[in-house]
Amino acid sequence: MSHPTNDQATLQPGHPHAAAQAGLMEWHRIVADLDWESLPALLTDDVRFRNPASFDAYVGKGPMVAILQTVFGVMEDFKYERHYGRADGYVMEFTARVGTENLVGIDMVAFDADGKITDFMVMIRPVSAVMSLAEEAGRRMATASTPASA
Amino acid sequence: MSHPTNDQATLQPGHPHAAAQAGLMEWHRIVADLDWESLPALLTDDVRFRNPASFDAYVGKGPMVAILQTVFGVMEDFKYERHYGRADGYVMEFTARVGTENLVGIDMVAFDADGKITDFMVMIRPVSAVMSLAEEAGRRMATASTPASA
Repeated sequence: MSHPTNDQATLQPGHPHAAAQAGLMEWHRIVADLDWESLPALLTDDVRFRNPASFDAYVGKGPMVAILQTVFGVMEDFKYERHYGRADGYVMEFTARVGTENLVGIDMVAFDADGKITDFMVMIRPVSAVMSLAEEAGRRMATASTPASA
Repeated sequence: MSHPTNDQATLQPGHPHAAAQAGLMEWHRIVADLDWESLPALLTDDVRFRNPASFDAYVGKGPMVAILQTVFGVMEDFKYERHYGRADGYVMEFTARVGTENLVGIDMVAFDADGKITDFMVMIRPVSAVMSLAEEAGRRMATASTPASA
């Protein structure tokens, strides 16, 4: 068991830096407009994307953009709720629905000094919603990558 | 799709209030000392506990204390990492292990003006770790509530 220090950084995580605030505004604009073509410019080349289903991170812009675009197509009634901050980024709570099932999740996002996203981790509960979402997103991504028959 | 407002509360979530900071210090002390007997005094009578596996909340001190005590007994190498804040509480990232499986999770905690916890939500990834943890915790809680044979 670790003994956490109750230091200033723990008790008062502080304001996200100015570039992180600008990055968050752009993130919210992209999500609101479903403007996925603008997302790569907001990411570092070696951005790490961590989904709720598996432990290992995806590295690079391509996988992250493809997965997010698909997942945002599966979720309905998506809405951001409470925001939490620290010097280098945010946790954003969200609510959504997959079919008839309600879910709650968080995006944990880290920004570099230029306001680019370096790390993006998603957690969702309950487990059954994660599995429904992963299954439907996987089906759509497989379909999208299959060439149309002649 | 909701259009989030990029207002001050979103971009600068702010410092947790003084009672929340005091409540967080006590939470960290309880976890470090595994002092579960002190936990009820940190909770409101109608505290809501939301676990990663199911959507509905448990209401009241009893279920939350019993579940947390059991789950902290199942997880190994538990460690708090990054903290994020807003006016009424925190998100605390943690890492741990269940058997050979590594996990990452968050506790999202809301405090009232007296520094008591009103809502405690847990999310964990990956899905397989949530299921391992829920299965082992369920087994231990069932055993604990079964009277010893004569």
